[in-house]
Amino acid sequence: MSLPRLPKALVQRAVTDALAEDLGLAGDLTTDATVAAEAEADAVIASRQVGVIAGLDLAEAAFAAMDAGVRFERFCLDGARVGPGDVVARMTGNARAILTGERVALNYMGRLSGIASLTRRYVDAIDGTKAAIADTRKTTPGLRAFEKYAVRCGGGQNHRTGLFDAILIKDNHIVAAGGVEAAIARARAYAGHMVKIEVEVDTLEQLALVLKHKVDAVLLDNMAPETLRAAVRQVGGRALTEASGGVNLQTVRAIAETGVDLISVGALTHSAPVLDLGLDFKG
Amino acid sequence: MSLPRLPKALVQRAVTDALAEDLGLAGDLTTDATVAAEAEADAVIASRQVGVIAGLDLAEAAFAAMDAGVRFERFCLDGARVGPGDVVARMTGNARAILTGERVALNYMGRLSGIASLTRRYVDAIDGTKAAIADTRKTTPGLRAFEKYAVRCGGGQNHRTGLFDAILIKDNHIVAAGGVEAAIARARAYAGHMVKIEVEVDTLEQLALVLKHKVDAVLLDNMAPETLRAAVRQVGGRALTEASGGVNLQTVRAIAETGVDLISVGALTHSAPVLDLGLDFKG
Amino acid sequence: MSLPRLPKALVQRAVTDALAEDLGLAGDLTTDATVAAEAEADAVIASRQVGVIAGLDLAEAAFAAMDAGVRFERFCLDGARVGPGDVVARMTGNARAILTGERVALNYMGRLSGIASLTRRYVDAIDGTKAAIADTRKTTPGLRAFEKYAVRCGGGQNHRTGLFDAILIKDNHIVAAGGVEAAIARARAYAGHMVKIEVEVDTLEQLALVLKHKVDAVLLDNMAPETLRAAVRQVGGRALTEASGGVNLQTVRAIAETGVDLISVGALTHSAPVLDLGLDFKG
Amino acid sequence: MSLPRLPKALVQRAVTDALAEDLGLAGDLTTDATVAAEAEADAVIASRQVGVIAGLDLAEAAFAAMDAGVRFERFCLDGARVGPGDVVARMTGNARAILTGERVALNYMGRLSGIASLTRRYVDAIDGTKAAIADTRKTTPGLRAFEKYAVRCGGGQNHRTGLFDAILIKDNHIVAAGGVEAAIARARAYAGHMVKIEVEVDTLEQLALVLKHKVDAVLLDNMAPETLRAAVRQVGGRALTEASGGVNLQTVRAIAETGVDLISVGALTHSAPVLDLGLDFKG
Amino acid sequence: MSLPRLPKALVQRAVTDALAEDLGLAGDLTTDATVAAEAEADAVIASRQVGVIAGLDLAEAAFAAMDAGVRFERFCLDGARVGPGDVVARMTGNARAILTGERVALNYMGRLSGIASLTRRYVDAIDGTKAAIADTRKTTPGLRAFEKYAVRCGGGQNHRTGLFDAILIKDNHIVAAGGVEAAIARARAYAGHMVKIEVEVDTLEQLALVLKHKVDAVLLDNMAPETLRAAVRQVGGRALTEASGGVNLQTVRAIAETGVDLISVGALTHSAPVLDLGLDFKG
Amino acid sequence: MSLPRLPKALVQRAVTDALAEDLGLAGDLTTDATVAAEAEADAVIASRQVGVIAGLDLAEAAFAAMDAGVRFERFCLDGARVGPGDVVARMTGNARAILTGERVALNYMGRLSGIASLTRRYVDAIDGTKAAIADTRKTTPGLRAFEKYAVRCGGGQNHRTGLFDAILIKDNHIVAAGGVEAAIARARAYAGHMVKIEVEVDTLEQLALVLKHKVDAVLLDNMAPETLRAAVRQVGGRALTEASGGVNLQTVRAIAETGVDLISVGALTHSAPVLDLGLDFKG
Repeated sequence: MSLPRLPKALVQRAVTDALAEDLGLAGDLTTDATVAAEAEADAVIASRQVGVIAGLDLAEAAFAAMDAGVRFERFCLDGARVGPGDVVARMTGNARAILTGERVALNYMGRLSGIASLTRRYVDAIDGTKAAIADTRKTTPGLRAFEKYAVRCGGGQNHRTGLFDAILIKDNHIVAAGGVEAAIARARAYAGHMVKIEVEVDTLEQLALVLKHKVDAVLLDNMAPETLRAAVRQVGGRALTEASGGVNLQTVRAIAETGVDLISVGALTHSAPVLDLGLDFKG
Repeated sequence: MSLPRLPKALVQRAVTDALAEDLGLAGDLTTDATVAAEAEADAVIASRQVGVIAGLDLAEAAFAAMDAGVRFERFCLDGARVGPGDVVARMTGNARAILTGERVALNYMGRLSGIASLTRRYVDAIDGTKAAIADTRKTTPGLRAFEKYAVRCGGGQNHRTGLFDAILIKDNHIVAAGGVEAAIARARAYAGHMVKIEVEVDTLEQLALVLKHKVDAVLLDNMAPETLRAAVRQVGGRALTEASGGVNLQTVRAIAETGVDLISVGALTHSAPVLDLGLDFKG
Repeated sequence: MSLPRLPKALVQRAVTDALAEDLGLAGDLTTDATVAAEAEADAVIASRQVGVIAGLDLAEAAFAAMDAGVRFERFCLDGARVGPGDVVARMTGNARAILTGERVALNYMGRLSGIASLTRRYVDAIDGTKAAIADTRKTTPGLRAFEKYAVRCGGGQNHRTGLFDAILIKDNHIVAAGGVEAAIARARAYAGHMVKIEVEVDTLEQLALVLKHKVDAVLLDNMAPETLRAAVRQVGGRALTEASGGVNLQTVRAIAETGVDLISVGALTHSAPVLDLGLDFKG
Repeated sequence: MSLPRLPKALVQRAVTDALAEDLGLAGDLTTDATVAAEAEADAVIASRQVGVIAGLDLAEAAFAAMDAGVRFERFCLDGARVGPGDVVARMTGNARAILTGERVALNYMGRLSGIASLTRRYVDAIDGTKAAIADTRKTTPGLRAFEKYAVRCGGGQNHRTGLFDAILIKDNHIVAAGGVEAAIARARAYAGHMVKIEVEVDTLEQLALVLKHKVDAVLLDNMAPETLRAAVRQVGGRALTEASGGVNLQTVRAIAETGVDLISVGALTHSAPVLDLGLDFKG
Repeated sequence: MSLPRLPKALVQRAVTDALAEDLGLAGDLTTDATVAAEAEADAVIASRQVGVIAGLDLAEAAFAAMDAGVRFERFCLDGARVGPGDVVARMTGNARAILTGERVALNYMGRLSGIASLTRRYVDAIDGTKAAIADTRKTTPGLRAFEKYAVRCGGGQNHRTGLFDAILIKDNHIVAAGGVEAAIARARAYAGHMVKIEVEVDTLEQLALVLKHKVDAVLLDNMAPETLRAAVRQVGGRALTEASGGVNLQTVRAIAETGVDLISVGALTHSAPVLDLGLDFKG
Repeated sequence: MSLPRLPKALVQRAVTDALAEDLGLAGDLTTDATVAAEAEADAVIASRQVGVIAGLDLAEAAFAAMDAGVRFERFCLDGARVGPGDVVARMTGNARAILTGERVALNYMGRLSGIASLTRRYVDAIDGTKAAIADTRKTTPGLRAFEKYAVRCGGGQNHRTGLFDAILIKDNHIVAAGGVEAAIARARAYAGHMVKIEVEVDTLEQLALVLKHKVDAVLLDNMAPETLRAAVRQVGGRALTEASGGVNLQTVRAIAETGVDLISVGALTHSAPVLDLGLDFKG
C-alpha cells in the first residue's frame, strides 16, 4: 500500500490557521514570559498507547512555522504501528518554538492517529477476507483531506472525497427523480464519463431493479449478513458491493465474510478517540 | 447559565468553508442530476440517541448558505437534552438546498452535540458538589470556538481560549525559568493586569512553594483524591484549585468530592463520539 | 440535458475578486465623477454575433455586488443560441452600479459564451454520430469551474475536473512505473473504488496490452481515423474510447464517425475567441 | 523596452490558487500512484509554433511550489521570439513535482505567450509608423496583471489598469453628466492631479467640443482612416490620439498610418489563441 | 466638490476584519453576560470637538455586521463640519449589536474624522489662494483607501494612490538612472500613456534641467517661499507645481501664496489626532 | 522588562497586505523604469527626532518580502531610545527591493515608534510612582497586535486585547443588567475561571457597592486626584485600581501620585504623531 502525498499547500494552511487560533494577537504569553528567546530544547513525541501513527507532516510543519530552524527527525513513517513508550519523532532547536507549537502538533497528530488506529482495528478484524474498509463523508469540517489520509494510514480505503467526484444515489434522490431507473438515467446523462455511479438499495427487490442498469457500485444499506450474502450473489460481479449500517468491531467480520467488496464505517472519522501522544523534554 | 453568542462571522466562515470542501468545483452531482431545481422539501433533524444538542446556528447557516429561502425552525435550543426520536429542527424549502447542505449541517451538529453530551455526563456525575467541569486546549484545529461553545452547552466551563488570554505555567516553563518562583515573577512582570496566572504543581511541596506567591489558580496534576483533598486544604481559598489527569466518568465524582473548584477533561473535545442525528424527509 | 448548478459561493467570490481587480482602492473614477449617485438606468446586454450564451449568473452577481437593488431580467437561459441583436438580459436600477459593473459582467459572459459557442460548433459538426465532445484541463487558471460549465452550456461533456477526481495514465507515468501493466496495477491499488482509470495509448499494440486489464477508458492519442476505427473495434465495448489530438472543426466529423465515444478538444477552453456582447443603455 | 517586474506576491498567489484548483483535496492521483516519491526527472518546455514567450516567472513558481528543489533554467527571457522546437526552459529535479506542476505551468505560459504572440503580430504589422498598440480592460477576470504584462512582452503598451487609475469618459458618462463639457469639468474637479483624463468621441464635431478643454487623450471610436487622419490633424498635438474599433490585422496598418498615437485592441486579451507549448521528458 | 464612493467591498472587509480582531473566538464577554439577547437600545454618536466628519459608511457597516436590523440614521454627511455636542448619527435596534460594534465604529470614525479635520484646517488656512492641499503615501498600512477618502472629506486632494498609478522620480531614482534626463526618458518609455510623471527637484538648476523635458508635475522639495515663487515663475504653467517639506499650519499660507498648485502634507495621514466622538445611550 | 514576541504569521501577513496595497497590479512603476534590476544599494534608516523605536520586525519583513537577499542589520532593538541622526538599521542588497519596500517599512516603523515614543513620555512622567501606563482598545483597526506591542516598547502595559479576553463592565452594561450587583453576578456566572473582571465606577458610592463583591479591578473614571486618592484608600488592595479620563502629560503625574495601580491612556494609540524616520542611501 502506498500512502497519498498530502498536498503541501493544504498542510501549510492547516498549520498556519491552527497556530493563529492558538496564538491570537498576543502570542504564547507563558512561554514568552518564562523561556529565554535563545534557549534550546530537545524533545520527543512518544506514544502512550497501542495505535497507528498519522500526521507527521502536520507536526513537522507546525514546528517549522514557529522556527524554520527546528530539526524534526522521524522515528517512523505514517502508518506505522506503535506501542506505549515508542518514540515517534524528535525535535531539536529553539525551545520557544517547540513549546509553542506543541499543542497544534499534538492536536493534529493525536486526532489523525486516532483515526488511523481505529481504522487499523477494523482492517485487522477482517483480515483474510476480500473486503476493504472504507470511510464516509462524515468527517470533521475543514479536515476532510487529512482524515481521509489517516484512514489510508490505517489500511482503509477512501470513498468519494465529496459531493463533486462521484455520484451516490440515495432514497431521497430516487423519490425526487420518480423512481430508481429515472434516477440512474438522469445521473448517467448528467455526469461526465469519468464519474462513477453508486446506488443505495435497502432490499433485494430494489437491487434487482438497479441491476437492470449499468452502475459501478451498489450500497447495500443495513442488511443482515444473510441478506448481504444473497445480494453479493445476485450482483455476480456486475458492480462493486458496499455494505454499510450497523457496522462495529463486533459485527464487521461477519459482514466481511458475506463476500462484499467494501464495508464503509462512519465511525472511523466521526467517533475515533484520540491516540494519546505526549511531548517530553529531555533533561 | 447563559450560553455565549457565537460570533456570527465565525459561523458564516465555518459553513462557507465546509460547503466548499464538500462541493468542490463541480457541486453536488447527485442532487443536481436527480432533483428538479424547483422541487420543495420538508425535512427534520431528529436525534437517535440520548444526548445534548449543540450547533443549531451552524446547521441553520449551512442551509441558508445553499438557499436563503430555506426556513429553519428550531424545536429546542442549544443545551437541550434529547432522546431517541426527538425532533430538533425542521427545514422547509428548496429540496436541493436541503439535500446538499445536509452533511455539513449534520457533521457540525453531530460533533458539537457529541461534545455537549459527553460534557453533560461529566457534569451530571458530579452533581451536588461544588466543582465545575472545564475543557482544555485539546480541541480540533479550526473548531476551537465551536467546541468550547459545545462544552458550555453541556454545562461545562471554559478554560483559557488559547495561549494568548491567560498564563499557565507548566513543568517545562519552570525548568526554563530556573524555578517556579522565577517563573511566576517573570509571568507577573510580563503579562498585563487583566491576565490571570495559573501554575501546575505535581506535589504538595511544589504547591507550598507556589502559594508563597500570589497566583490566580493552581493546576493539581495527576494527584490521587486524598492528595487533592490535602491540596485544597493547603490552598485554603487563596487560589482556584483545578484537578487534571486520570479523570474519567468512573473517577470524576471522587475527584469532585475532594473540594476542588474545577476538573479539566481533555476527552470532552478530543475523544467525544458524535451524537447520532439523522435528517429525515417527510413523505 | 440538464446544466449543472454553479456553486453559489464560487460565483460570489469570482465576482468579488474581479470587481476588486477593476476598482482598486479608488473605485470607478469616471463614473463617480460624472454620474449622480441617485441616477437610474435601463440597459440591455445584447449579442452582436451568432453564438451560445453562458454565464448569466456571473453577470447578475456582478451588478448585485455593486447594488443589491439592480433588477436583472433574463431573456434567455444559459445554453441558448443567439444571433446579432438578440437581447440576453436587461438591467434596471442604479446607473453607477450598472456602469461600474459592466466590464466585469461582460468579461465573464463574453469569455464563457465564447467557450459555449465554440463547443456548440463542434457538437453540431458531429450531429448524428454517437460521439460526445469533451473538454480538458487546459483551462484558464482560476476559472476551471466556470469554463467547464460553459462547455456544458455548449452541449459538451466534462472530462475529469482536476488531478484529484480520476486517473489518467500517460506516457511519463508508464515509463516511471516501469510499464503500462505496472502502472495500471499501481493505480488500481492506490485509488479508491469510486475513481475511474483511463490510459493513454499511441498504438494498437499498446491498446492490446492495456485491454488485458480492466480500465474504464482508453485515450487514443493522435491516431488517424482508420486507426481509430480499428481501435474502437479492438476495444469492443470493454472500455470507453476517447480520441484526442489533431482535432479541429475540419477533422472532427471524420473522427466521430470512427465510432469513438468521446472526442476531447483543448481548444474549447484554451483558444475560444470571446463572444461579442454589448451593453447598451436605453435612450 | 524594459519589461515590468511582476509583483512577486501576485505570482505566488496565482500559482498557489491554480495548483489548489487542480489538486483539490486528494492531489495528483495518477502521479502519486505511479511515480516513486524519490524519482528524478529532466524535462524541457519547448514551443511548437512561432510566437513570443511570456510567463516564465509563473512556470518557475509552479514547479517551485511543488518542490523547492526543482531547478528551473531559462533558455530565453519573456518577450523572446521563438519557433517550433525552440526550448524555452528546462526543469530538473523531483519527477512528481514536475509532472504535477506541468499543467498549471503550461496553462499560464500558453495563455500569456498567446497574448504576447498576438500582440507582436499587431506591433509588427505597424512597424515604421509612430503608433503603438495598446491593450484594454477586456481581460480575463483575475489575470489582468499578467495579461497586461504579456501585452508588454509582445511589444504592446498598457492602457489604464482599471477603473481606478485613469479617467475615460464614454458616451454614457457624457449623457449622465449632461454634456461633454460638464463631464470633463466634473472629472477634472473630482480626480487628483496625477490622474489623466481621456474622452471618447465618435465624430469630428464632438472632437472640436472636447478640444476646447484640456484633456490628456482622445479616444477616436470606430472612425474610418480618413476621418482618423482629419482628427489627428484637428488635435494638432494638444492630446494623445487613440483609435479603437474595427481593428484587426488587416486594418491595423492603415489605421496606424493616419498618424494616431495609439491603437487599442481588445482582442489581444479577449481572443488570443494559446501558444502551443509542450513539456517533454528526456529519455 | 463631490466625494468619492468608497468601494463597498472594501468597507465590508474592513469592518469584518476589525470586528474579528476585537471579538476573537469568544466574542464580547461583557455584553453577552450582562445584556439580554433581545434588549433594544437607542444611541447616538456625537462629536465632543470641532472637526469634520468622515467614515459614516464604516460605522453603519459595523453595526449592520453585528445585526442587520440595526437602523442607522445619519444626521450629516461625510465632510460636514461639526462642533461639541453635534449628533452625527443615531442607532436604534438590538442593544448587544450596538454595544459590541461601538468600538470598531468609533475607531474608524474617530481616525478618519481626525484626518478630515486636520485636512480642513490646512485647507482653511490657504483659503483664497489657488493652491490645493494634497496627501501622500504616508498612510496607515491597510487603511489607505479610507484615509485618502478622509482627506477628500476635509477638502483636500489625493496624490497618487500607490506606486502603481503614477510615476514620481526622486533623488535615488535619478542617481540610479544616471541623471534626471535619463530617468525621465526611461520613465516615459516604460509607462503607459495614461500614467503621469512627476519629478522631484531640490534646486532651480535641477528644475531647469527637468523643464527641458515634458513632465506632468514637479515636486519642489523643501524650498523656501521665495525659491518656490521663483520656481513657479520658471515653470510658467508647463507643469503642475507641488511644494512639500517643512509644511505646517504656521507655514502653509506663505507657501500657498507663492503660487504653487499643490502643497502635499504627510501629517494629514501620519500624525492627525483622532476626532473625539462619543457613543451615548438614551435613558 | 521583556518584550513580547510578535507572532511571525501576523508580521508576514501585515507586510504582504501593505505591499499589495502599495504595489497594486502594476508594481512600482518609477523604480522599475529607472533602476536596473541588478543594481545594489546600501541604505540606513535613521531617526530625525528624539523617540523610542518599535517595529523593526516589520521593516525587516518588508524588505525580505521584496527580495529575500536583502540584508537587514539592526543597530538597536525595539524599545531603544534614539535621537536625531541615530541609525536604527542598515539594509544592503537589491536596490529595487529597498526602494520599493521603503514606504511600507517606514509607515509601520514610524507609526509604531510614534506610539512607543508617546508612551515613553507618559512612563517617564510618572517615574518613581508605583503606577503603570496602560493602553486601551482605541487602536487602529487591523493593527491592534502591533500597536499594543509598541506600547510595551515604550514601557507601557497592555490592557485587555479585545472584547474576548477580559470583562470590563461599564455604565451601559450595568443599566442593561439592572444594577451593578446583577451585572457582576452575571459576569461571574458567564465567564470562565481564567477571565478577570473589572468594573467601571464614577463615584465613591458606586465603588462601595462594587467592593461588596469580588472583582479583579476597578476603573475609576474621570475622577479628580483627590477623589482618586480616596478611592484607592477605599479599595485597600482588594482590587487593582485603574484611573482613566482627562489624562494628559500635564495631569498624569498628579494622577499617578494618588496611588492608583494603572493609568490608561487612549491617546497612546489613537493620537500619537509618527516618529520621523528617514531612509537614506549611501553615496
